[in-house]
Amino acid sequence: MKTANQLPSADGLWTDLRLAPGAAPDVSLPEGAQAAIAVEQGRIAWIGDSSAVPERFANAPRHDGAGALVTPGLIDCHTHLVYGGQRANEFAMRLAGASYEEIAKAGGGIVSSVRATREADEDELFAQAAPRLEQLLADGVCAIEIKSGYGLSLEHERKQLRVARRLGEAHGVTVRTTFLGAHALPPEYAGRSGEYIDAVCREMMPALAAEGLIDAVDVFCERIAFSLEETERVFQAARALGLPVKLHAEQLSDMGGAALAARYGALSCDHIEHLSPEGIAAMREAGTVAVLLPGAYYTLRDTHLPPIEALRAAGVPMAVSTDHNPGTSPALSLLLMVNMACTLFRLTVPEALAGVTVHAAKALGLETTHGVLGVGRPADFVLWNVRETAELAYWFGHRPARIVVRQGRVSFPSPSGRGQGEGTRP
Amino acid sequence: MKTANQLPSADGLWTDLRLAPGAAPDVSLPEGAQAAIAVEQGRIAWIGDSSAVPERFANAPRHDGAGALVTPGLIDCHTHLVYGGQRANEFAMRLAGASYEEIAKAGGGIVSSVRATREADEDELFAQAAPRLEQLLADGVCAIEIKSGYGLSLEHERKQLRVARRLGEAHGVTVRTTFLGAHALPPEYAGRSGEYIDAVCREMMPALAAEGLIDAVDVFCERIAFSLEETERVFQAARALGLPVKLHAEQLSDMGGAALAARYGALSCDHIEHLSPEGIAAMREAGTVAVLLPGAYYTLRDTHLPPIEALRAAGVPMAVSTDHNPGTSPALSLLLMVNMACTLFRLTVPEALAGVTVHAAKALGLETTHGVLGVGRPADFVLWNVRETAELAYWFGHRPARIVVRQGRVSFPSPSGRGQGEGTRP
Ligand SMILES: [Zn+2]
Ligand SMILES: [Zn+2]
Repeated sequence: MKTANQLPSADGLWTDLRLAPGAAPDVSLPEGAQAAIAVEQGRIAWIGDSSAVPERFANAPRHDGAGALVTPGLIDCHTHLVYGGQRANEFAMRLAGASYEEIAKAGGGIVSSVRATREADEDELFAQAAPRLEQLLADGVCAIEIKSGYGLSLEHERKQLRVARRLGEAHGVTVRTTFLGAHALPPEYAGRSGEYIDAVCREMMPALAAEGLIDAVDVFCERIAFSLEETERVFQAARALGLPVKLHAEQLSDMGGAALAARYGALSCDHIEHLSPEGIAAMREAGTVAVLLPGAYYTLRDTHLPPIEALRAAGVPMAVSTDHNPGTSPALSLLLMVNMACTLFRLTVPEALAGVTVHAAKALGLETTHGVLGVGRPADFVLWNVRETAELAYWFGHRPARIVVRQGRVSFPSPSGRGQGEGTRP
Repeated sequence: MKTANQLPSADGLWTDLRLAPGAAPDVSLPEGAQAAIAVEQGRIAWIGDSSAVPERFANAPRHDGAGALVTPGLIDCHTHLVYGGQRANEFAMRLAGASYEEIAKAGGGIVSSVRATREADEDELFAQAAPRLEQLLADGVCAIEIKSGYGLSLEHERKQLRVARRLGEAHGVTVRTTFLGAHALPPEYAGRSGEYIDAVCREMMPALAAEGLIDAVDVFCERIAFSLEETERVFQAARALGLPVKLHAEQLSDMGGAALAARYGALSCDHIEHLSPEGIAAMREAGTVAVLLPGAYYTLRDTHLPPIEALRAAGVPMAVSTDHNPGTSPALSLLLMVNMACTLFRLTVPEALAGVTVHAAKALGLETTHGVLGVGRPADFVLWNVRETAELAYWFGHRPARIVVRQGRVSFPSPSGRGQGEGTRP
């Protein structure tokens, strides 16, 4: 694979573009006008009417958009992308009728991902995660959150987070790291949940924060994971270090996690299938984003929908993400999540697309740089092989990105073969 | 896009391959042995142990498989790929709360696809269908069924079927055409269903068959489409012309279509969510394949599962397909259907993979040439970027085909960028 800095520069003037609705809220174009985007040193220097380009860009290199629809780069705001091994065998065994006990005996479940993550060194974890990241990038993803949580010790959580940073550098993609030490109780702490939370708060989090490896802190608050009280201890430790928080909340039951997270000004509450009206009110007050994870809902064959209508009515911003992880959502396409958010959760098309752009940026605290196109922001945008914006949500299983500009570098995903990408415009 | 005959030849010796279970039933390898495949003039000339290659292939050009997992080329055995327009706007309107009446007023529904198909000429239909086909081919599809049924008159059904044939030639993919004149009642025959079936049987089918455009005949047998009696008339006409039949059966209700189709020796009964025990027994007797269409089940948010357990118990072969169509399954990935067949329908991984290879071949009457690897068969196979076969079903939204050999030509799908395909092997 080419590293990001081997890709061609996007600097110059991108012409003959159709801006998707909401893509550039500060830009108003005459009805039917084509847009142009000027890129300088990897940032957007100007956006506007293609027929009124400022003089200073007149001699810039030209990139012909050929009438393509343009959106901001997509943002996958909730992933567990870095881990050792995978669990295809467990998936196959379960379908073949194996019991949970048999799967556990065969080394399945989250414990197997923890073991494989601990056994792998940084280079191995990088080599395993990179092709998964490339699959996601092929959909036009320009920023991605990557959580720890399969190491569950200082050494191994550090390894995960360092790999997350390295992936960002190698692929020229914005990576936000989230420390999820409180993902599961590691086997060596069985029956000593409080002591593990002590280690998370007093040892792991301060050390990893000091190394600059933590952009946010997350907890899996659930009966099968950590209690509300344990969650709050982690949040207090994060606050003491000045780190923003987010929460895996109310996926399987209403624990009151969302209201707690909102009290700590959480960036997001994620999953939230069982979110209560009180949780919604607290999130609205706090400006917390609701992150919807239809890939996990689908894989788990869940039937309890998140309270979309109530979130919509309250004006809580909704993001959509893959929740990529080896157990409950081995999803490798953010656009497929857009379709699933519409099909399974009944989001409207504009809601689902805002969910992977502007609202996903907010869920990562990136709203001033990512999620919409604007002057001074990084040149992260996608030219699509579709005529209508709604096609991004309507078709499923496709790879319609024609050109991805990511951190000011140009790449050409292709669904159908090396060097054949240009021919696929419908 | 490159036309198929511009792609490099696959002739020569493919070495260092791992055969997926069931890929080559006539080949037995020593435990753990790597396989090799010799291709001559686009056909498989030999398959066997990599370390026991016959002398005559010793000097053939070498293609290093680098340890890749190999399966037969995938087969998408039920699609409506050729049509005018698309219905993303209808999808968006419905999510935004529009009623069926409002959508109909805005020109939605199958009628809109019929209108757009009739308005488009052959070149336009080809240009619209080609990028959809390329998306499917990127998953390693080597044979595909394409139905008519949006033309609904001799002229326009002919146009669809001719485009299907052209797609096959241009892309070097095996296309089986299915005449589905009895898909819906065209507006000009409103209230005169019997007369339309007369036209299908007496005018359209004989003319199109004479032009060599029909490989099989299909009917949409449903309360909202054609009756059992009308279906039988179409089957009789097909039999008189020596054409095999298949049926859209028991999708919304148990019409008894499967048993009827079985009496006519149908290749397949498709959808079959409401299939009865009598239907299953009849299909087993007749050797009819059950074609499962999880993309439509998913898109329609159906909750009535096809009787998988009973089909399995009866030994009815199950195929899996995209049912690609603009209304109820705008699916563009057959591998995603494999995941959905497992996740939604609880097929085992080997069942789901047989569903897109050996059983899909049988559903198209291609069992002597396609669906498994064997000497004398066309060189249609896929080298995958996965370690374990189960990964083909486990991950979803990915594009893991590394190299596709299709009709003896080599192509390199890439999930992540032009020229970057080689780097994505996990
Ligand atoms: Zn998660
Ligand atoms: Zn169909």
